[in-house]
Amino acid sequence: MTNSRTVTLLTDFGLRDHYAAAMKGVMLGINPALQFVDISHGIPPQDIQSGAFTLGHAYPWFPAATIHIAVVDPGVGTSRKAILVSAAAQVFIAPDNGLLSYVFQQEEGWTAYEITEDHYFHKPVSPTFHGRDIFAPVAAWVSRDVPLHQLGPVLKDPVRLKIPSLTRVRDALIQAAVLAVDSFGNLITNLKPQDVPSYGTVDGRSCRILAAQREITSFRRTFAEGEPGEVFVVPGSSGYLEIVMKNGSAASTLNIGAGAPIGVVFS
Amino acid sequence: MTNSRTVTLLTDFGLRDHYAAAMKGVMLGINPALQFVDISHGIPPQDIQSGAFTLGHAYPWFPAATIHIAVVDPGVGTSRKAILVSAAAQVFIAPDNGLLSYVFQQEEGWTAYEITEDHYFHKPVSPTFHGRDIFAPVAAWVSRDVPLHQLGPVLKDPVRLKIPSLTRVRDALIQAAVLAVDSFGNLITNLKPQDVPSYGTVDGRSCRILAAQREITSFRRTFAEGEPGEVFVVPGSSGYLEIVMKNGSAASTLNIGAGAPIGVVFS
Amino acid sequence: MTNSRTVTLLTDFGLRDHYAAAMKGVMLGINPALQFVDISHGIPPQDIQSGAFTLGHAYPWFPAATIHIAVVDPGVGTSRKAILVSAAAQVFIAPDNGLLSYVFQQEEGWTAYEITEDHYFHKPVSPTFHGRDIFAPVAAWVSRDVPLHQLGPVLKDPVRLKIPSLTRVRDALIQAAVLAVDSFGNLITNLKPQDVPSYGTVDGRSCRILAAQREITSFRRTFAEGEPGEVFVVPGSSGYLEIVMKNGSAASTLNIGAGAPIGVVFS
Repeated sequence: MTNSRTVTLLTDFGLRDHYAAAMKGVMLGINPALQFVDISHGIPPQDIQSGAFTLGHAYPWFPAATIHIAVVDPGVGTSRKAILVSAAAQVFIAPDNGLLSYVFQQEEGWTAYEITEDHYFHKPVSPTFHGRDIFAPVAAWVSRDVPLHQLGPVLKDPVRLKIPSLTRVRDALIQAAVLAVDSFGNLITNLKPQDVPSYGTVDGRSCRILAAQREITSFRRTFAEGEPGEVFVVPGSSGYLEIVMKNGSAASTLNIGAGAPIGVVFS
Repeated sequence: MTNSRTVTLLTDFGLRDHYAAAMKGVMLGINPALQFVDISHGIPPQDIQSGAFTLGHAYPWFPAATIHIAVVDPGVGTSRKAILVSAAAQVFIAPDNGLLSYVFQQEEGWTAYEITEDHYFHKPVSPTFHGRDIFAPVAAWVSRDVPLHQLGPVLKDPVRLKIPSLTRVRDALIQAAVLAVDSFGNLITNLKPQDVPSYGTVDGRSCRILAAQREITSFRRTFAEGEPGEVFVVPGSSGYLEIVMKNGSAASTLNIGAGAPIGVVFS
Repeated sequence: MTNSRTVTLLTDFGLRDHYAAAMKGVMLGINPALQFVDISHGIPPQDIQSGAFTLGHAYPWFPAATIHIAVVDPGVGTSRKAILVSAAAQVFIAPDNGLLSYVFQQEEGWTAYEITEDHYFHKPVSPTFHGRDIFAPVAAWVSRDVPLHQLGPVLKDPVRLKIPSLTRVRDALIQAAVLAVDSFGNLITNLKPQDVPSYGTVDGRSCRILAAQREITSFRRTFAEGEPGEVFVVPGSSGYLEIVMKNGSAASTLNIGAGAPIGVVFS
């Protein structure tokens, strides 16, 4: 009746208040065999884009059958839907506000359901805390093998944020962007190593990255190779190139953040 | 011999140091089947009132048999007692300094014990860290079904903080108070929705809330309904009315905090 | 095939990003029965000394068979080795940069291995995140009873930081040092209670502690005994004397930190 399943949590609640713990308590009341992993409770308040990025780069490391709850939910209590998504052999539960955009982008063959079956909710449902009263109990019931289609009807068109993609403007220029900034101030771009000659297959060309009116020409393999004060590029652990500093914040130094445009110039 | 039981922790230790982990290590040495849930380690240092509120609004969401350890303990090493309380089919372990005040207020039929049986302590007991040397091992032994009365004698009169209650001054005025401020700056009051006409049963009257020399007349259902810059009221997830802002801190804007008096005026 | 084992994590990653969660996901994919305990993710970035202290004072509280992963790793991707250490019936996995110095100092009969067997790594190995691609999977395989010597050859001389020791300069003076500062600003020294007459065996002498051009003459048992504004000494929970204030930060007041010299003068 109870299964040991991993449930992850990603929220913008912070760690001082009891909100995340209340969600865990609700789940343990339904399935005491759950194992919790906190992905983050430090998403900047209401920053759906940041939450989507963080979840999108955490879930691929979890095994099949993991259940992820994500709550960055400025529209809680309004007509925004609650959704449950089956993808990558895992389950995702979140408000329908774009928080699962990277899941939709990265996975083929996902199925989304609108969560409507209030039999699985904690009642009364607070208009200000669906994390505790809807997402948490639904996750716990899913961990006990309630079939997903019992939660509600299939939803064809969940909300998706626009995730910046690369544009090859002409043979010598790629328009790219900063996807996210991590807590060290590293700028995570949407460029992959194979997109630039400095890391990719050799073709005899060199390149520069343009960011915030600066040219970055230093491409390194590790942080340790950076010079003091230098802004340089490394192949980051999420699979993207990152603009970084060795003992500092590239985001502060360049004064740019998520969404900022960057360019790659080949010569 | 070992039982899978949930143990929660609430402290003012912060998350940088090893103090909370040392408590968990001690418990795993006694019962390796424990499941830990951190309610908060971010209670402001020595703020018993804040810790009491946070615990008091987390525990009701946990299932029977949960064991809660709370350590906000400015009197550690002095003559202040250590207590164990059985209430709501759960167990609470804390210094006897008021940290369990909401448990006593909210539950009928609790039993408190003074923890005196040092057979269950880790020795030598540090005069500065009873969390590790008394509360944690006692919790772990309780999880292994040591009967509560073996920990020490019944305590009739544990310390209770004064929790502000509502006073109806005259037909047109209620004196209320701010119970707590959460990390978003939301002011959690001791008013319940049924206390004010705007949310409760209709009786043809309207009301205003007075806080910090301001009149608040906007009563909404969700955060999303708030106007930019507006201070308004929502029915919060803890069952109380909260004075909030949509993308800001009502506590900072009004410059008030826990304990501040507020008024409700009917007209 | 899977064993319930405790794996602790200590990093300088902070709690906002998904880095620690990615490590846990990798481990759950190899051994779903693991139990995680976070010792700290708040080690100051790249502060190996602080990480070493924190780990060194957490692990003694954990039971046999616990596996500890420590990642404060400014040299990630360079030629610095990865090591696995068997000590105190526990296992430690870390970069070979001194992070395990307190383990080496405190334990007799440890064995260190260089981790070279990439069969147990997640591939491709990111040059910037060995925590996820080397330390985490190795820990999970160790939890499944892969013999330690299969991870690589014995390493005779792992890197060890210099941990300040006491020097008795003459009969009336001991040169000591601050080992660490905790998040409350308490200065944890390398003096033990038995090193000073005020706490140790009575010999009729008194003593003063010199720190930052100040003389500290107040030796107390508990924090509660401190006077407002007073800098005093307590026997700390880690077994060392701590220079503290009751409701303040001794580190800020004295403006000193880890590594600062202190003196003990007998008279």
